[in-house]
Amino acid sequence: MIKEKKNVETVISSSWIFTANNDDQLLENYSVVIDGGLIVDIVESDSVFNIYQANEVYQLTDQLLIPGLINAHSHLAMSLLKGYADDMELSIWLNNHIWPAEKNLVSPRFVRDGSRLAMAEMLKGGITTFNDMYFYPQATAEVSNEIGMRANIGLVVLDFPTEYASDAQDYLNKGLIFRDTWRDNPLITTSIAPHAPYSVSDESFSMIGTYANQLQMTIHTHLHETEAEIAESLQKFSMTPIQRLDKLGILGPNLAAAHCVHLNNTDIGILKKNQVNIIHNPSSNMKLGSGVANIKALYEKGVNIGLGSDGSASNNRLDIITEIRSTLLLHKGKNQDAELLKPLDAIKMATINAAKALGLDKKIGSIDIGKRADITVINLNSIECQPCYDPLSTFVYSADKNSVSHVWVDGDIKVKKQFLVNIDEDKLIHNAKLWQTKIKKI
Amino acid sequence: MIKEKKNVETVISSSWIFTANNDDQLLENYSVVIDGGLIVDIVESDSVFNIYQANEVYQLTDQLLIPGLINAHSHLAMSLLKGYADDMELSIWLNNHIWPAEKNLVSPRFVRDGSRLAMAEMLKGGITTFNDMYFYPQATAEVSNEIGMRANIGLVVLDFPTEYASDAQDYLNKGLIFRDTWRDNPLITTSIAPHAPYSVSDESFSMIGTYANQLQMTIHTHLHETEAEIAESLQKFSMTPIQRLDKLGILGPNLAAAHCVHLNNTDIGILKKNQVNIIHNPSSNMKLGSGVANIKALYEKGVNIGLGSDGSASNNRLDIITEIRSTLLLHKGKNQDAELLKPLDAIKMATINAAKALGLDKKIGSIDIGKRADITVINLNSIECQPCYDPLSTFVYSADKNSVSHVWVDGDIKVKKQFLVNIDEDKLIHNAKLWQTKIKKI
Repeated sequence: MIKEKKNVETVISSSWIFTANNDDQLLENYSVVIDGGLIVDIVESDSVFNIYQANEVYQLTDQLLIPGLINAHSHLAMSLLKGYADDMELSIWLNNHIWPAEKNLVSPRFVRDGSRLAMAEMLKGGITTFNDMYFYPQATAEVSNEIGMRANIGLVVLDFPTEYASDAQDYLNKGLIFRDTWRDNPLITTSIAPHAPYSVSDESFSMIGTYANQLQMTIHTHLHETEAEIAESLQKFSMTPIQRLDKLGILGPNLAAAHCVHLNNTDIGILKKNQVNIIHNPSSNMKLGSGVANIKALYEKGVNIGLGSDGSASNNRLDIITEIRSTLLLHKGKNQDAELLKPLDAIKMATINAAKALGLDKKIGSIDIGKRADITVINLNSIECQPCYDPLSTFVYSADKNSVSHVWVDGDIKVKKQFLVNIDEDKLIHNAKLWQTKIKKI
Repeated sequence: MIKEKKNVETVISSSWIFTANNDDQLLENYSVVIDGGLIVDIVESDSVFNIYQANEVYQLTDQLLIPGLINAHSHLAMSLLKGYADDMELSIWLNNHIWPAEKNLVSPRFVRDGSRLAMAEMLKGGITTFNDMYFYPQATAEVSNEIGMRANIGLVVLDFPTEYASDAQDYLNKGLIFRDTWRDNPLITTSIAPHAPYSVSDESFSMIGTYANQLQMTIHTHLHETEAEIAESLQKFSMTPIQRLDKLGILGPNLAAAHCVHLNNTDIGILKKNQVNIIHNPSSNMKLGSGVANIKALYEKGVNIGLGSDGSASNNRLDIITEIRSTLLLHKGKNQDAELLKPLDAIKMATINAAKALGLDKKIGSIDIGKRADITVINLNSIECQPCYDPLSTFVYSADKNSVSHVWVDGDIKVKKQFLVNIDEDKLIHNAKLWQTKIKKI
C-alpha cells in the first residue's frame, strides 16, 4: 500500500542542525520541513522524502542550520552614520557629533534609507530579527515589512524635543499610534523604549511603567553603559540607575536592558531578582571605551543574556556572528579562563536567549516544530572552515558572516547562495553615497 | 615633441593608497607602478598613463590599496588541527591534546599540506608575508616557494626530541642546513626560533645567541604567554623569563617575541631598552585564556608592536584583518579609552611595524618606491562599507577579510577579484577532509 505524500512548501536538508532548544540538540543529516511559514516537522533526511513532497528543496551538504540570528539591540537608521565619528568616548561622541548630526538629518526618509541599508547587511549576515530603537519607528516598520524581516520596534521616549516629537508624552502618543497601525502584522511587534535613565525622567519612567503593564508590552532601554552614567545618577538620585529603575517599577522579565557594562553585586542581584534580560554589545562597548561587561558573573548567576550590535555609528558592523566570536574570546581573555562559555552558550545568546529577551521565544529562537521558520544556514565547506571536527566550534571560531549561505524569515527565503533575494545591493550602495555627500556637508 | 612612454609590468590605480611610511600618507587617486617585482613609481592616476605603458592595468575604484599584510607569528601546519581542541587553557591544550596529536602526525607531508591550506586562507585575507615556527621548515618553504608567498621561516629549537630532531644541537644543525638551501631565494628568509623559555635550556639559548650574532640572524620565540610560565620561571630561575633571556644576551632589536601578555614594569623597561619587537596575538591569547596584553603601556613606551594570528589550533582563523579590529577594540575597551589607538596605528602594526620585527623593513612593509611590490587591495564598495567617510576607518571597523579584492606578492598577482590565482580551493578542501578523517582516529 503506497501512502500518499504530504505536500509542503519547503524542505531543507542539512548536514547539521543546531536546534538551540532545551535539549541543545545537534542533529546530523536531518531536514526541516516548512509549511505556511511554520516549522512543521524535523525528520531524518534519509526518510523525509518518503513522507513529504516539497515545492522547494535545498540539499545543503557540509552546512550548519541554526535558528535565525537575532540582533537584540540596534539603531538601524544610524547605518548612514557608519564611521562618521570614530575613536571617541560615548558622551563626546553623542553630544558633540551624533546628536548634532541627527538634529540636521533625522527624517522619515533618513530612517527608511538607513534602515534598508542596515537590513540588507543584517540579512546577509544571517540575522532574521532585530530589536530597534530610533526616531520615526513607522519608517523602520515600513521597510521591514517591505523586505520581510522580523522586527521588534521600540516606541522611543526621550525627555528632550527632536524633529520627531516634543516631549515624553508626545513621543509616547506617537508610539502608541504606530503600535496600533502594525498590531496585526505577523512580522512586527513593538516595545516601549525609554532611551536611557540619563535622558528620561522619573515621571516619564512611571508613565512608561503604567503603559507597559496595562498593555502587556516589553520594554527596551540603555542601562549602565558607562561609569559616568552611574556617577551622575549617584550624584543626582543617590542611587545607581538600576536601583532607580527598580524603585520606579520598571525592572522585570519584560525588560531588555542594553549594555549593563558596569554593575556592582547589588545591581547584579537586583537584575537577577527581577529576571531582567541583558543585551550584551561587546564591540560597541569596547569601541566607545565604555568597558567590558562582567558577563562571567551574569552568566554564572543565570541572568538571561542576548547579543546586540548596537548602531553602525558605534560598532561599525551589524554582525552578530562577530559579536558571538567576540563574546567568547573577550570573556575567556578577560577572566583568564579558557573554559568559560562554550560555542553553544554564545549561539544561544544570539538565538533563543535573545528571543526570550524580546518576549518572542514562543514564536522564534529555536528549531522546534510549531515555531515560525526563521532559519540561517552556515556553509562550512570553505578553506577557512576545513577541517571541521565540531561544526559549532567551526561556526563560531572560523566562519564569519560571509559563510552565511541561506536565510529564511517566516518561511520565505531572503538569502540564497549568499545573494539577497529581494534587495538590489547596487541601488543601496548608490543611495548610501548620495547620503554620504549630503552628510559630509553638515 | 612626444616623449616615449616607459614600458612596465603593472599599473594599479586605486581610489586610496595608505602608504604606511613615515609620513602616514593617504593618497587619493594615485597609482602604483610595478616593474621587476619592485614598486618603481607612485604617481597621480590622472597622469600615470602619460608616463607609463603597462602590460597589466588595474583600475580599482572605491578600493583602498595598502602594503601587503604581515602575519608576524604563525604555525601554519597546525591549520590541520583547527578546532581539534577548543576552550581549554594553554598547558592542558598543549600537553594533553596538541603535543600528543603532533607526536602521531607531524611529518613533511603534514607540514606541506597544513601549510598549503594556511597559505590559501592567508592570501585570500590579504596576507603576503608570514613569520612561521614549526617542525620541518623545509616543507613550509617548499610550499611557500611553489605558491609564491613571502615567508620568514624559523629554525625551530626545542630541548626535547620529536620525530623531526633529537636534541637542541640536532634541531639547530637541521635548521642551518635548511637555511643554506634557501639562502638565495628572493621570497624566503629565516630566523632562529627557540620555542620558548620553558622548553629551551640556558645552554641552548646561549648557543642560539652565538649563532644569531655570528650569522646576523633574527630570532623568533614565544615569551611571557601565561602567568604560569612566569611563576615557573620565578621558581626555577628566581627571575622572569624576560630577565633570564636578558642575562643570556638574547634580547635585542633582532628578536620578535610573541605574546608578552604578562609584563611587570621592569620587564617592559628591559624590552624597551633592548629594542625587542613584540608580536601581539589578541585572539589566541583570549581563546586560550592566557589574558590580554598591556598594549597601552607598550605602545606608549614606544615598543615596536607587530600582529600575529598564532596557529589555527588556538585562534582559529589566520586573519590579520580580524586581529587589527580586535587590537583596536580590545585595548579601547580594556583601558576604557576610546581614543587609544587609531586605525592607522593598528594598520601599521600589521605592515611596517611587523616588517621591522622580522628585519624586513628595508624590503617590505610600506608603499614606497624601491620596495618589493607586496600589495593588498580592500574593496570598500559593498553595503557593509557604505557610506565611507574615512577609508582607513571603514577598512578596520567595517570591512573584513572577505573585502580583500586583489593581492600581489613581489609583483605577482595572487588574488584577483577575490579568487586565488594559482591555488585550487576544491582540492585543498578535499585534502583537508582526508586529514580530518585520519586525525579523528588518533
